Amino acid sequence: MEPPEGLGDIRRTHLSSDMDPALDGEEVVVMGWVAAVRSHGNITFATIRDRTGPVQIVAKKGVCDDDLRTILTKAKPHSSVAVRGRASASARAPGGVEIIPNMLRVLSAASRTPPFEPATVTVPNIDTRLEVRCIDLRREPLRHMFGARTAVLRAVREYFYGNGFTEISTPKMIASATEGGSALFPIFYYDKEAFLAQSPQLYKEQLTMSFERVFEVSPIFRAEPSRTNRHLAEAISIDMEEAFVDYNDIMDRTAEVVRRAAGAVGEYAERNPGSKYDIPDTVDIPRYTYEELAGRIHDETDLHMEWGDDLHPSWLRRLGLDGMYFITDWPMGPKPFYVKTKQDDPRVSESFDLMWGDLELSSGSTRMNDRDGLERNMRNKGMKTASFAHHLEAFEYGMPPHAGCGIGLERLMMAMTGTGNIRDATFYPRDVDRLTP
Amino acid sequence: MEPPEGLGDIRRTHLSSDMDPALDGEEVVVMGWVAAVRSHGNITFATIRDRTGPVQIVAKKGVCDDDLRTILTKAKPHSSVAVRGRASASARAPGGVEIIPNMLRVLSAASRTPPFEPATVTVPNIDTRLEVRCIDLRREPLRHMFGARTAVLRAVREYFYGNGFTEISTPKMIASATEGGSALFPIFYYDKEAFLAQSPQLYKEQLTMSFERVFEVSPIFRAEPSRTNRHLAEAISIDMEEAFVDYNDIMDRTAEVVRRAAGAVGEYAERNPGSKYDIPDTVDIPRYTYEELAGRIHDETDLHMEWGDDLHPSWLRRLGLDGMYFITDWPMGPKPFYVKTKQDDPRVSESFDLMWGDLELSSGSTRMNDRDGLERNMRNKGMKTASFAHHLEAFEYGMPPHAGCGIGLERLMMAMTGTGNIRDATFYPRDVDRLTP
Repeated sequence: MEPPEGLGDIRRTHLSSDMDPALDGEEVVVMGWVAAVRSHGNITFATIRDRTGPVQIVAKKGVCDDDLRTILTKAKPHSSVAVRGRASASARAPGGVEIIPNMLRVLSAASRTPPFEPATVTVPNIDTRLEVRCIDLRREPLRHMFGARTAVLRAVREYFYGNGFTEISTPKMIASATEGGSALFPIFYYDKEAFLAQSPQLYKEQLTMSFERVFEVSPIFRAEPSRTNRHLAEAISIDMEEAFVDYNDIMDRTAEVVRRAAGAVGEYAERNPGSKYDIPDTVDIPRYTYEELAGRIHDETDLHMEWGDDLHPSWLRRLGLDGMYFITDWPMGPKPFYVKTKQDDPRVSESFDLMWGDLELSSGSTRMNDRDGLERNMRNKGMKTASFAHHLEAFEYGMPPHAGCGIGLERLMMAMTGTGNIRDATFYPRDVDRLTP
Repeated sequence: MEPPEGLGDIRRTHLSSDMDPALDGEEVVVMGWVAAVRSHGNITFATIRDRTGPVQIVAKKGVCDDDLRTILTKAKPHSSVAVRGRASASARAPGGVEIIPNMLRVLSAASRTPPFEPATVTVPNIDTRLEVRCIDLRREPLRHMFGARTAVLRAVREYFYGNGFTEISTPKMIASATEGGSALFPIFYYDKEAFLAQSPQLYKEQLTMSFERVFEVSPIFRAEPSRTNRHLAEAISIDMEEAFVDYNDIMDRTAEVVRRAAGAVGEYAERNPGSKYDIPDTVDIPRYTYEELAGRIHDETDLHMEWGDDLHPSWLRRLGLDGMYFITDWPMGPKPFYVKTKQDDPRVSESFDLMWGDLELSSGSTRMNDRDGLERNMRNKGMKTASFAHHLEAFEYGMPPHAGCGIGLERLMMAMTGTGNIRDATFYPRDVDRLTP
């Protein structure tokens, strides 16, 4: 295989999306990958795709150089090419304009045929696709997923910036488990044992002491043993934490973050006609207490449920809950040690989950800001308090009341785009079976 | 120790920075931490700080409730408090207004005196400070560092969004070493061995096949054995990668990113009079080739240098190089396997470093996009090509010519703020000696 031609001094002048009949007669340079080539006797049509879409190249005998026509006709799909030529308005061409090439450079010839073509409607199962993810990501639905995701990240961060939040980065290599010890990935940290952070929880809490309002968008790591369509071993979490507020204030913020995300996806879809999403209603997100839903399960179904049980996805479906809604005031029992008890009912926590149908998108709470209570909670959970000495010490310096939550970005994107498998909301998913590519 | 009072329904109405003599007579609620309390007979002055700065509370006998005065007088610094009271214009008060309190709630009493006070000018050495980082971060220089950092991140991402870049997240848990195997943190990935990613390198390259322009701001992990003021085991990298360009185009982008960062820090400093930075000149960043600097070392100094040697920081200082500048066209020898050779000189790479004085801020290059050449480079570096099978396969599907770089966020912030120790450009630093807090 020949080494590819260098790019040299040639540069792209137009994207596919810039091509317009008004360019008729102008010289343009486009670059992209070969999506399709069709020859009909003396004429060759090639579709070149770049990140904005397709452009048509038309090479006719007598008009274009014979060598160029030969190379174009033989170009293997997925090869990277540069085409210089004259734009020519044409009613038949997609976008109303095609290119009559006078120079073609194969920048990198494909030497292999991928197991499936990105343009086909029926695609193989996700495992086959993930094996050639670099090609799979050329598919329109994924291109739009990650275009929309970019828009969501931008909009969500702008919300935080606009509301006086400091952007933080907390360590991902930590000495002790935040959520109690299960589902941790151990690391060799020089000569010590350490773990990958399951969340920025303890650090973001401490940072409210100095910055009051903090947010972080960063990877979290959970050694989930389950094979489901809603869990990843490595995911992106949108974390916020705020001093001098409680979980109701954070619920308001979470609702606003979700509205901004929905707005961003809506705008993206308008700008990109190829994408169409059934975006959930986020204008008025209903709030149900755990108590209320437990009561409805008792009254409306034949399910047997005890107060304190988790609300199984199937039970929520039985109640006909769909779209976005909050479940608030969960029982204390299963909640992590840092969650605060309700003042008027010690069985209940100041907590919420944001749901989309039966999928949990976010979990938040008012946090304990009382050192002794926090230590007591740790002991009750069987945690070694000595490992949390630094964290407990922070609470001796006047830790403010605070509350916060984490929103799973991939799940949020599943909700926004109606995607069924969380793996298609991330670039290179990690799970119990998959570490490559 | 009593559990802290709950926040209840009380909420802040004003930040310190909102306090203005025009509020005279109005009722306000401020919240923050006690920075100082001074009593003079019948009058107590307290300074409460929130994330925007200080506000003065004045409790006079006869005017304020005796219990309130007692609690305020005894309030231990760092305690979190809520104060409701009447704003009163006063020429003596900082900001021209003070608060005459009618309600004081200690939301969380400090039970311990920190080893140093954030307000003092002379602070202990960094190790002592890092042990109580939650208090250390209340210091003005750090508050501004991370305020400026937030502004930089916002500005830098806006540059990418505005230029059609897709925001990516690449896996941090990977099967094989990107940069050749040294300085890796191993992980237990379920039943497999894996590593923490030293950079998003291979994934961002693959993603140029579908998205062309990609960027990521995310943690990178390097088991640096050195104890220096410029290395971290966990740092934030601003990565970009782009199809159909070479290293000169990426140098232009890097210069623009740095200009945006400088602009953001400049604006931050204007909005925050407490911060003052000697921001480096980024308008016209000079570019020197390795050859040129090697020649100058030969001609202008008595140092002994062979062509191909790295340019030691001390040599660069000897040449009097300071501020921001690029060094381009480095020898191929020490470059990673994915860096492209210059077409007209196989000893030289299409590469650059962005320097600030003798500190490397960024490293970039045109990348190999030739599968066979890439595999040859891997072998020459002694790498096991079998571990990179997925990556090599991607190059068989017409990998476009591409180039990119990574910018170290902490080092960039050191340059922007004139900070000498990289640990003060991160919240909770990680190094060979430090895994907590």
